[in-house]
Amino acid sequence: MPTFFQASPFSANGVITLTTDFGLTDPYVGVMKGVILARHPAAQLLDLTHHIPAFQPDVAGFWLARTWRYFPVGTVHLAVVDPGVGTERAMVLLETGGHVFVAPDNGLLDRVFQSASQSQWRTFHLTDLAHLQLPMPSRTFHGRDIFAPLVAEIAANRQRPELLGSVGKPASIADKLIIGAGQIVCADHYGNLITDIEADCLAEFKQPVLLICGLPIALYPSYGFAAKGELIGLVNSWGTLEIAEAHGNAQQRLQAHAGEPVRVVESIQGL
Amino acid sequence: MPTFFQASPFSANGVITLTTDFGLTDPYVGVMKGVILARHPAAQLLDLTHHIPAFQPDVAGFWLARTWRYFPVGTVHLAVVDPGVGTERAMVLLETGGHVFVAPDNGLLDRVFQSASQSQWRTFHLTDLAHLQLPMPSRTFHGRDIFAPLVAEIAANRQRPELLGSVGKPASIADKLIIGAGQIVCADHYGNLITDIEADCLAEFKQPVLLICGLPIALYPSYGFAAKGELIGLVNSWGTLEIAEAHGNAQQRLQAHAGEPVRVVESIQGL
Amino acid sequence: MPTFFQASPFSANGVITLTTDFGLTDPYVGVMKGVILARHPAAQLLDLTHHIPAFQPDVAGFWLARTWRYFPVGTVHLAVVDPGVGTERAMVLLETGGHVFVAPDNGLLDRVFQSASQSQWRTFHLTDLAHLQLPMPSRTFHGRDIFAPLVAEIAANRQRPELLGSVGKPASIADKLIIGAGQIVCADHYGNLITDIEADCLAEFKQPVLLICGLPIALYPSYGFAAKGELIGLVNSWGTLEIAEAHGNAQQRLQAHAGEPVRVVESIQGL
Repeated sequence: MPTFFQASPFSANGVITLTTDFGLTDPYVGVMKGVILARHPAAQLLDLTHHIPAFQPDVAGFWLARTWRYFPVGTVHLAVVDPGVGTERAMVLLETGGHVFVAPDNGLLDRVFQSASQSQWRTFHLTDLAHLQLPMPSRTFHGRDIFAPLVAEIAANRQRPELLGSVGKPASIADKLIIGAGQIVCADHYGNLITDIEADCLAEFKQPVLLICGLPIALYPSYGFAAKGELIGLVNSWGTLEIAEAHGNAQQRLQAHAGEPVRVVESIQGL
Repeated sequence: MPTFFQASPFSANGVITLTTDFGLTDPYVGVMKGVILARHPAAQLLDLTHHIPAFQPDVAGFWLARTWRYFPVGTVHLAVVDPGVGTERAMVLLETGGHVFVAPDNGLLDRVFQSASQSQWRTFHLTDLAHLQLPMPSRTFHGRDIFAPLVAEIAANRQRPELLGSVGKPASIADKLIIGAGQIVCADHYGNLITDIEADCLAEFKQPVLLICGLPIALYPSYGFAAKGELIGLVNSWGTLEIAEAHGNAQQRLQAHAGEPVRVVESIQGL
Repeated sequence: MPTFFQASPFSANGVITLTTDFGLTDPYVGVMKGVILARHPAAQLLDLTHHIPAFQPDVAGFWLARTWRYFPVGTVHLAVVDPGVGTERAMVLLETGGHVFVAPDNGLLDRVFQSASQSQWRTFHLTDLAHLQLPMPSRTFHGRDIFAPLVAEIAANRQRPELLGSVGKPASIADKLIIGAGQIVCADHYGNLITDIEADCLAEFKQPVLLICGLPIALYPSYGFAAKGELIGLVNSWGTLEIAEAHGNAQQRLQAHAGEPVRVVESIQGL
């Protein structure tokens, strides 16, 4: 596939987004930013979130897949949710639509991969990092010691993806989802239960309702249309379905957690 | 009032402050910043706080009113605490003292409005946003879809307030507060109970004490002057009264929450 | 010692790191940033952490001492953990290796002081701040009213350390630590228990194990090498020893808190 080896069309704009499970209590994020600025003083650093649930790379991938198109073309997205740090797990770079994503090769980028059309992405196993001349990395903090200097160099347009490793797919690519079936990915700050069910699927139903924990939940245009305390389903601003309590907290109400199955079904009245 | 229609004296410096109830767990703040940078790459983004209690616009207004003068002239302040998102609630822009404030028209800016002298502000209902050429907004995240691109354009000096809507007051302007009477606005990170009682009122008393939950509390110059564990009242650095426990947590000690009435009264000894 | 009075070799690069116990719930950090940008619009502001445990300056010092070398030369580090604010406590500036540190003189900088070689630092009591022409500071928020404008001026290369006060050591310099003995400094976001024991000390032992709460804990190269749920000791990425539970939370498991003694001992098998 020689076309893959042509010069990369990616041109960095200096913006780097950061997504981790580090939290903000410790100085881990701050020190990564220091390392980036030491190599690329003009970098613009944007936190996507540092509160990915610990050791859950798929949640990081969900949010990256849903948000990357809102960032300017030329952005480098670094995601570090890395339970395998210090072992032989690989690192992967994905390039699509004028954006670059860098992450451990642990499934984190699967949903980003799925969100881009196949003809438009290129992926690289990051194996040729010797010419970055990094000091000996620690065994426990590759975010600081490898990923931060790496994205600094890419964002400064001093390293190109095709020079950092060989073309290749990430280790795992999750199956395509069944239409109208999925699960809770996470509860957000308001207790809204965010699913990975594409809202597009609603067109397949006459009068769709959401089903969670055996409970049918009606769909509304937005939070403001329901009475206080009512459980509602809605299309969220990321294009997936979510379950909310109007002016309340659906997560506390339903005690539903990440992984809980959710389905779209035909309303009985609608049949 | 034709004087209102003269060219706005506002000149943006590129700084945008962000105040929301989004929290930092989800990528909501990060994606708003991405949208802003995509339109105005040179913007300087400053988080005021994203931990306004959910659905309490008045707390956002309290902090904006107390802090805006510390930011450089030319700053645009965006505040999104927006329980009515997706319904017909309006949006409002307030310009005063070389600063611009943008928020949902739900009372959020009332205290900012009160903090500026009346001759110096201009307010606009934001109704003429068609020329921003926004894509169809979601029903649930106007922070990302409307407010973020809007403040990016203002901060880039590409949109002027008088072109975005008609002059008009916000929907609600709260009553002026009674001297020496008020309430807890919030407990801060240290458990200090911050009131909305202007410290200026102390001049009206001979030996003022604070009264909360029936408990009289003496006033001190600062935390360091009291014995560990002592409950003290003091003038905080925002010009209002607050109740603290020296080296402790007054909120846990008193179990007092937002909305709890507080009064300044004359000490009995002082009469 | 006239050599101390030569012109400072420090040249600021505009980067300012911020370390506080303010948390991110309140707008205290945001307003400090506003004050800095109002004086030095080109400043680059980096949060190290704002979640230092309330009133524990030594934890701030631990993290600064372990992280400052990752930031670019020319960085100004401001740390405000300041239980004595409003009393007569002094302020101190430490310059070493092309970095400047500013903090209350309450022991916060002791560990930074220890981390630099003695021939290379200079310290100043900050007593000559009149020429900064600050407005009357509040009694409770010197971070905003004194420290923020001060570091803005230093980061803008408009104020030099030798003009801000007299040369002098900080009030307290902690004793040197005993080899192989120390304590838990804090639990991080993952519940890893971070000690202040230098990893270098392991070379003094044949088969070292960690001892905490009477429990011996084996040392591993990194998290990924242990079975899920296993308690392990390891050299962390800051060069000290730490205790972790593989894919778990050691702090919850051991219920060990800051201050808990930890020692390195010879394994019985190893003797």
